[in-house]
Amino acid sequence: MRKKIVILGSTGSIGKKTLEVIKKYPDEFDVIGLGGWENITLLKEQIIAFKPKISVVKNEYLAKNLRKDLNNYNTTKIYWGIEGLIKISISEEVDMVVVAIAGIASLIPTFEAIKHRKKIALASKEAMVVAGELLIREAKARNTIILPIDSEHSAIFQCLKNEVKDNIEKIILTASGGPLYNLTESALKNVSVEDALNHPNWKMGKKVTIDSATLMNKGLEVIEARWLFDIPSKKMEIVIHPQSYVHSMVQFTDGTILAQLSEHDMKIPIQFALFYPERINNNYTRLDFTRISQLTFKKPNFNKFPCIKLAYQALDIGGTMPAVLNGANEIAVNAFLNNRINLTEIPLIIQNTMKNYISKTNPSINDILDADHWARQSALSLCTNKK
Amino acid sequence: MRKKIVILGSTGSIGKKTLEVIKKYPDEFDVIGLGGWENITLLKEQIIAFKPKISVVKNEYLAKNLRKDLNNYNTTKIYWGIEGLIKISISEEVDMVVVAIAGIASLIPTFEAIKHRKKIALASKEAMVVAGELLIREAKARNTIILPIDSEHSAIFQCLKNEVKDNIEKIILTASGGPLYNLTESALKNVSVEDALNHPNWKMGKKVTIDSATLMNKGLEVIEARWLFDIPSKKMEIVIHPQSYVHSMVQFTDGTILAQLSEHDMKIPIQFALFYPERINNNYTRLDFTRISQLTFKKPNFNKFPCIKLAYQALDIGGTMPAVLNGANEIAVNAFLNNRINLTEIPLIIQNTMKNYISKTNPSINDILDADHWARQSALSLCTNKK
Repeated sequence: MRKKIVILGSTGSIGKKTLEVIKKYPDEFDVIGLGGWENITLLKEQIIAFKPKISVVKNEYLAKNLRKDLNNYNTTKIYWGIEGLIKISISEEVDMVVVAIAGIASLIPTFEAIKHRKKIALASKEAMVVAGELLIREAKARNTIILPIDSEHSAIFQCLKNEVKDNIEKIILTASGGPLYNLTESALKNVSVEDALNHPNWKMGKKVTIDSATLMNKGLEVIEARWLFDIPSKKMEIVIHPQSYVHSMVQFTDGTILAQLSEHDMKIPIQFALFYPERINNNYTRLDFTRISQLTFKKPNFNKFPCIKLAYQALDIGGTMPAVLNGANEIAVNAFLNNRINLTEIPLIIQNTMKNYISKTNPSINDILDADHWARQSALSLCTNKK
Repeated sequence: MRKKIVILGSTGSIGKKTLEVIKKYPDEFDVIGLGGWENITLLKEQIIAFKPKISVVKNEYLAKNLRKDLNNYNTTKIYWGIEGLIKISISEEVDMVVVAIAGIASLIPTFEAIKHRKKIALASKEAMVVAGELLIREAKARNTIILPIDSEHSAIFQCLKNEVKDNIEKIILTASGGPLYNLTESALKNVSVEDALNHPNWKMGKKVTIDSATLMNKGLEVIEARWLFDIPSKKMEIVIHPQSYVHSMVQFTDGTILAQLSEHDMKIPIQFALFYPERINNNYTRLDFTRISQLTFKKPNFNKFPCIKLAYQALDIGGTMPAVLNGANEIAVNAFLNNRINLTEIPLIIQNTMKNYISKTNPSINDILDADHWARQSALSLCTNKK
């Protein structure tokens, strides 16, 4: 049976890699929908190559232009906006939705897809960060599954396979440390956007690369793991592992640790999610231990990278606080990328936003969206009049 | 239900550790039998502490003395010889036999225990090396299981748990390299028994410590893994990993590697085997990544350590050749321990013994014992008139 797939964020880093994987297995998948948003040039190429029934762009204007452009090639329907993303995600014939949109925009389409019993292959951590409890509860109720694409969570998922949850002593999330880990605190203050975007091991989108430089990425991953694997935050540890070959580990109550390793290639966790529960052979580059020679580990410096502490705090407060953390972070990262604040102001803005907020417990999706909206406004006001 | 256990080799390194584990869980196990052989002083203590129904020593003389010694304490029956080991291993009430006798002496008791449907927790690699195909076939036919205690094979077993065999691309056996790995070839020639016995990471018996210094240990483990996991030798790779924290790894056909790690503590794999399929919590020392700081890897030098090549050769020839390899190795190691040959003569003696032998395919247990006997005689004649 061919799997019928929708990709939200097909023109982004993970979306493109997902299509690379799908292209390698032409007998296994039908691409039903491609959500591409603004990069119309690339989306057009993807539509011609994969012939989806529906594609989605940011607005009606882009949709009309793209449809005109495609007239000589095919009859793919072009929708637009979040409503368009929802429509392709819940389309009856779809088996799996690959969610690879950066930021909170992924939340509603993911939630709707789960409600319609679609399998989710999740690359966007934000949806899980702001509404993990809700999404997991819904997935259980609808008897569907959320498969992680993030290399760390894919690693944990594989280490936990068929193990008993009560036997988990801790989850050890590895962190490359990003491009700036060895800078002094004062050097961190003056880091340029260009340097912060220069990740040593992975080519990724801008938002996630800055999150990696502030180590917020790891904080968000802790929150994501808390819901994906139903593990309390006190059982989650972060270890700096600059080579990024060990993607994460699980320590069991008998003293055993299982680790998952591979080359730096997101196609590996993507393929794992697409084919789950089967492993399918491929010819991606293998990790060669006679070449890598060493794997190093050290304790993260939470004082130099306070975003991690803030993420643990938000998780422990719970309710809508993770949405506030995430919203404020998106605004602060954006302000940094636009040269309006320093890198080290990112955690300060998040901290001050969180300080002014009272979390709402047991939130609905609307409560979460409200918290996100509030956090963005609040963080935005803190970003003005800086540099 | 309390598990009813027999330990063959209770006074050896693994036997003692097995009893340490059992002592921690007094509600879980009954020690039915203890095979202790020559160390009567320790065996007496073990009998008093664990009150087995039967114990076994090397010969009638030791048996009578021990029985007399024990008169004030209990009524444990004392048997002797291989027949004694067999008797306790097949005793009706026994659930599991822990096989921790060094050398080929473990073969017959293990085979008989399997025929009587006992679960086997196997620390002695020699039985598997000389008769792996036979033992596995018998275990399948009798619907019982052979659980590895060797840290490498326990690691592989755990990484393979619930994975599909066809998805195994290769098994990566890690090797500490032993105490002599960095010596030059000429320095290896003149190494003393004392230096060769000085293993950096593990305290083990003399035989296995020398096997670790010549890397024959890894060769024997390749043969053992071939039968335990039904994996051809060409899918097995050895990597030098001096810290011995990664106990072994499995690479799958999708490019994923799973690794098992823990502190240097044989109680961990012993406990895993004793309680399998359950994991039970303990307070053994945990691996601390902020302390170990680095794991290193390199390609083994097969020319400097030719025992590995000989083991692959014996495995590829098959039949009774692994028994010849193992028998010649036991004799050569013993000759080295008695200062009769140099360390670097061990592989030469094995090679010359194998050269003069024509392997018998599809061997019976008797064929294997004959091959072992022939190899010992042949190797012994090569060891004489040396130093």
